[in-house]
Amino acid sequence: MKIKQRDDAPPAASGYAGVAKQIVLGPADGSNEIVLRYFSVAQGGATPRHSHDFPHLVKVEAGRGAVLGPDGGETQVSAGDYVYVAPNETHSFKNIAAYPFEFICIVPARGEPSATDWGPALR
Amino acid sequence: MKIKQRDDAPPAASGYAGVAKQIVLGPADGSNEIVLRYFSVAQGGATPRHSHDFPHLVKVEAGRGAVLGPDGGETQVSAGDYVYVAPNETHSFKNIAAYPFEFICIVPARGEPSATDWGPALR
Repeated sequence: MKIKQRDDAPPAASGYAGVAKQIVLGPADGSNEIVLRYFSVAQGGATPRHSHDFPHLVKVEAGRGAVLGPDGGETQVSAGDYVYVAPNETHSFKNIAAYPFEFICIVPARGEPSATDWGPALR
Repeated sequence: MKIKQRDDAPPAASGYAGVAKQIVLGPADGSNEIVLRYFSVAQGGATPRHSHDFPHLVKVEAGRGAVLGPDGGETQVSAGDYVYVAPNETHSFKNIAAYPFEFICIVPARGEPSATDWGPALR
């Protein structure tokens, strides 16, 4: 069992400017099956429009963002919103406010590069 | 893709008095691999001391609780604390305040009875 807070997790490479990442619960905590990451996207920042073969389960923690969906449409989200991104769905998360847009993003271990040691830094 | 809020999810059977449960992201949303549940434990309530072969990834959302660990020790937690419970670790979550103790609890699909149609209601 491991009990910790977000800032017990050191910064991790996100691979993208303006996107800070922390692995809050992951392999370093013994969690080898599911990984919980915390992302903070700075003003003007976004994650790339991309897709991959694993899902995202997201809970928005702070700020205001837009989620780009597979049909190209955008939906605004804020704290308390949950987003499920299915495997292979094109998506992007973008900050649309003047302060950080923050969310937790849960993936199976195969979706977290530091857990698998392959692929680009941000998935 | 699915975007929703906690209270878009109807109450689900937790199997225990004083423990309310909602499946916020799960099979009904297309999430067949990982399930995100929201628990609200009323004053005086607790989940049973138990163990199972899948992990829990927990984030405390509100209130004050105590997490019972495998060695019998208790650790107090509150909003912003994260807990990883490894497979087969004995654990319990207990409300220690006069208002609801609330947390999200993420499991692989095999840990959510409504996703697997087996086992007791609360796992």
